[in-house]
Amino acid sequence: MSNVYVLGIDYGTESGRVLIVDVATGQMIAEQVTKYPHGVLTEKLPDGRTELGRETALQVPQDYLDVLTQSIPRLLQQTNIAREQVIGIGIDFTSCTILPTTNDFTPLCEIEGYQHRPHAFVKLWKHHAAEAQAQKLNDLAKDEQWIQRYGGTISAEWMIPKVMEIAEVDPEVFDETNLFLEAGDWVTAKLTGNLVRNSCSAGYKGMWHKADGYVDTAFLKKLHPKLERIYDTKLRGDVRSLGDKAGSLTKEMAEILGLQEGTAVAVGIIDAHAALPGTGVSEPGTLVMVMGTSTCHLLLSDKEEHVPGISGVVEDGILPGYFAYEAGQAAVGDLFAWFVDQQVPSYIKQQASDKGLSIHEYLTELAGELSPGESGLVALDWHNGSRTPWVDMSLSGVVVGQKLSTRPAELYRAYLEATAFGTRVIVELFEAHGIQIEQLVATGGIPKKNPLLMQIYADILQRDVTVNLNSQAPALGAAILGAVAAGKERGGYDCVASAIAGMSSNETITYTPNAKAEAVYDTLFASYQKLSRFFAKETSMMNELTALKI
Amino acid sequence: MSNVYVLGIDYGTESGRVLIVDVATGQMIAEQVTKYPHGVLTEKLPDGRTELGRETALQVPQDYLDVLTQSIPRLLQQTNIAREQVIGIGIDFTSCTILPTTNDFTPLCEIEGYQHRPHAFVKLWKHHAAEAQAQKLNDLAKDEQWIQRYGGTISAEWMIPKVMEIAEVDPEVFDETNLFLEAGDWVTAKLTGNLVRNSCSAGYKGMWHKADGYVDTAFLKKLHPKLERIYDTKLRGDVRSLGDKAGSLTKEMAEILGLQEGTAVAVGIIDAHAALPGTGVSEPGTLVMVMGTSTCHLLLSDKEEHVPGISGVVEDGILPGYFAYEAGQAAVGDLFAWFVDQQVPSYIKQQASDKGLSIHEYLTELAGELSPGESGLVALDWHNGSRTPWVDMSLSGVVVGQKLSTRPAELYRAYLEATAFGTRVIVELFEAHGIQIEQLVATGGIPKKNPLLMQIYADILQRDVTVNLNSQAPALGAAILGAVAAGKERGGYDCVASAIAGMSSNETITYTPNAKAEAVYDTLFASYQKLSRFFAKETSMMNELTALKI
Repeated sequence: MSNVYVLGIDYGTESGRVLIVDVATGQMIAEQVTKYPHGVLTEKLPDGRTELGRETALQVPQDYLDVLTQSIPRLLQQTNIAREQVIGIGIDFTSCTILPTTNDFTPLCEIEGYQHRPHAFVKLWKHHAAEAQAQKLNDLAKDEQWIQRYGGTISAEWMIPKVMEIAEVDPEVFDETNLFLEAGDWVTAKLTGNLVRNSCSAGYKGMWHKADGYVDTAFLKKLHPKLERIYDTKLRGDVRSLGDKAGSLTKEMAEILGLQEGTAVAVGIIDAHAALPGTGVSEPGTLVMVMGTSTCHLLLSDKEEHVPGISGVVEDGILPGYFAYEAGQAAVGDLFAWFVDQQVPSYIKQQASDKGLSIHEYLTELAGELSPGESGLVALDWHNGSRTPWVDMSLSGVVVGQKLSTRPAELYRAYLEATAFGTRVIVELFEAHGIQIEQLVATGGIPKKNPLLMQIYADILQRDVTVNLNSQAPALGAAILGAVAAGKERGGYDCVASAIAGMSSNETITYTPNAKAEAVYDTLFASYQKLSRFFAKETSMMNELTALKI
Repeated sequence: MSNVYVLGIDYGTESGRVLIVDVATGQMIAEQVTKYPHGVLTEKLPDGRTELGRETALQVPQDYLDVLTQSIPRLLQQTNIAREQVIGIGIDFTSCTILPTTNDFTPLCEIEGYQHRPHAFVKLWKHHAAEAQAQKLNDLAKDEQWIQRYGGTISAEWMIPKVMEIAEVDPEVFDETNLFLEAGDWVTAKLTGNLVRNSCSAGYKGMWHKADGYVDTAFLKKLHPKLERIYDTKLRGDVRSLGDKAGSLTKEMAEILGLQEGTAVAVGIIDAHAALPGTGVSEPGTLVMVMGTSTCHLLLSDKEEHVPGISGVVEDGILPGYFAYEAGQAAVGDLFAWFVDQQVPSYIKQQASDKGLSIHEYLTELAGELSPGESGLVALDWHNGSRTPWVDMSLSGVVVGQKLSTRPAELYRAYLEATAFGTRVIVELFEAHGIQIEQLVATGGIPKKNPLLMQIYADILQRDVTVNLNSQAPALGAAILGAVAAGKERGGYDCVASAIAGMSSNETITYTPNAKAEAVYDTLFASYQKLSRFFAKETSMMNELTALKI
């Protein structure tokens, strides 16, 4: 099993990253990052004249292929790895990021006559123009059994609202579309020629269920007449479980990329979700917190429970044979960055610079000198709305306890604590619904960079928090799936669990709770919960304030 | 009545200001400001070694006399006004600022053996070490009729809690003290040789009532055995109404100051309260807002009502013949300054500097471009606790509605609006208790400097707001009282109303409400009130948070 490698390809919001990984050890040999040439389109199409409406976020599909053609040949050259040593490819992708294509997977936006039609382009996960459609869907679905799997709410970011938006706003594009595909499945299709939908995106974003299948046609017809048979037509295609092989690399693509024809390509996975295998989790009971601009919480279980306010529960959603739960906090790194950019006075910037520290580092140093509760502050971390547990984007941030004596490091610490309280809400929510959590694992850039934050999480959760120091956990997770798709005979693995055992990263640091902080943090958490209930349930003030903004 | 002048002397927290004013017109001829050499003592006594406890704020009485000896001779020289042309002196002073003296008005701290005793010094109005004493007083007084005149609560800043503190903490100083005097009354006594207590300080801070006199001895005995007969002993002295003459300048002081012996000295007044005559108000129905670091609201009326949460109502408290109401907001200019110092990022500072503006000016410009409600923010202005209506220093500031898109100018405007909502609460409180308000007058540095703030006040209050552009209204008010004390025969006035008519400033700007803002501000004000009720009445969260700080 030595001298063979897999590619782990991680498609993010602004760029794509390709890792080349040793199959035997999981060691990352080299990486290449390619920025998408067109980035995120929010103002105009690439034609430079077609203006985009508000809340629109589009991408250009060719950019995703550029990641492959620019990175892969370069990686092989740089590492002196031969094409036949690369036995598998795994892909993770942002989701729900979708595009309309023809029958042969040609993006509609590449067809003459559609280059100036916004709805012919990729709708990125954070395209938010389908709020009205999501509202209609949720109103109609409120008594449906299946919506309970999604915590009671379907997001405007997901597949059906986005497809509804096209049907309503640009019916010509809708009619011309042969397939609506997740972008991750589109890349897989381009590589293999096969139409395969991954169970992760299909389950979390496409309303697919392993036992019950998709939502029934009667319901779909109520949403929009054009949607009645959508799952048999434009959303057709086998849903395959993660760990399966989607197909083999075509001759054409093998030549372009400098790889061997027939190389195994794994079924895709959502980017955050790929962190779970990447951090070595293959069993129930471990909550994986993928911490970046936002936090995604992932948890395997043997059973399907309906937990209100979570993002979803999907059988085979991450690893085959398990129900995987997803929950989320909408602002974490983004919240700290906003604070540093918008609320930190110049004297702090100057002091940080004098000490040769970034503002984040300096504020962390100052915040670390404070005791729990010393600031007299408590905040709600809803600056980007609330995902779990309230699923309400119109909720907003709150700070209580400011005095004329309040200083920036106190507020910074209050925001760090607020995100930890938000996580405690999620942990307690799962446990209240019978899903036990034995262990907490954090991954991503923030946990590695900010030990104070992780100590606060341990103190507020009153549990050990283990930080996985591999900051490329999603790409590694994708590579692991690539090694399983290759199979043991070709030098890979015969199942996901053994691939995780062989390849995942186990370089970790564990933060242990400080018992002395428990009482103060219990008091502050009670305040956090009281504020949460008041603003989410007892008054519609935040919705009214958000309505005034528009 | 030409060619005669009066001195208006305004004693603030950090310095004293002396104006020389034309009696006929009220024109301010010249002024001198003298910083107190010892400032505010919070760490150590002037001996450099006696350390002070927390919440302590002391002053040195000689500093007050230095204001007179340094300013007055210089003013006369500078203006070529002869000593016989100066016919009266009026004094306003911070309150409740008190000192212990001997029978001949010698401050205890100047007596051998007491220079190292903190309790022998002046306790400044913002000395906050008598919280425990105020708590005991309020607990014992909760069923007393007289406490209703003070909105139901006696502040730790006032006379009896401060005297109780001395009785409890340094009984030797208490026993040695012959008189506890308001510092304003002490200056008057030093000038005239007479023991006179002004009805303004006695009424608002000393629990004096024109009809009922002081609190009864049985109650005082319960507070502390040493206090039983305090009003007949260490707090003895005639209470005289504003507009009266306290006495005549002694020969000794006349020589030191370069004035004429026998010059009339008016009964003193609290500094903020002197702004009422200074801005030309001599009748009921006009709410005067003295806006600085905090705002003091003053209102004359023909009747005494018990209004919960106000600072006090005192007959003859400002002008003879009227009941004068006082209410307050604890942080106004201080709140804006805190925001600019602690929450404004360097890019705003840079942009302001590029435009040649101060940060306040630049944020005001940006905030002025926003429509009401556009920020989606609402704040509680309790960063220094709440004076009216909650009388609770442990309350704290709140901001609701922050998003990742929130920018500094939006927060700045939200704080401007919050103070206007706080004022609307006070206006509605008075009117709900039968005290009508026909007119609003603002005075102080802030209203003159910030037209946007005043327009927001007009829009939120939905009333005209008239700004009196004389930023020395208190000193002018004191001068007016000095002209009345001199009397008509000596070239002054025979009553306060005619002195106000002759001398007060009438340079004003009036802001008219914009009807288009009414609906949005009514919505935001409803949110402000909902937040107020929640945090002041429905949860003890803020008290708990403040307790954690300590």
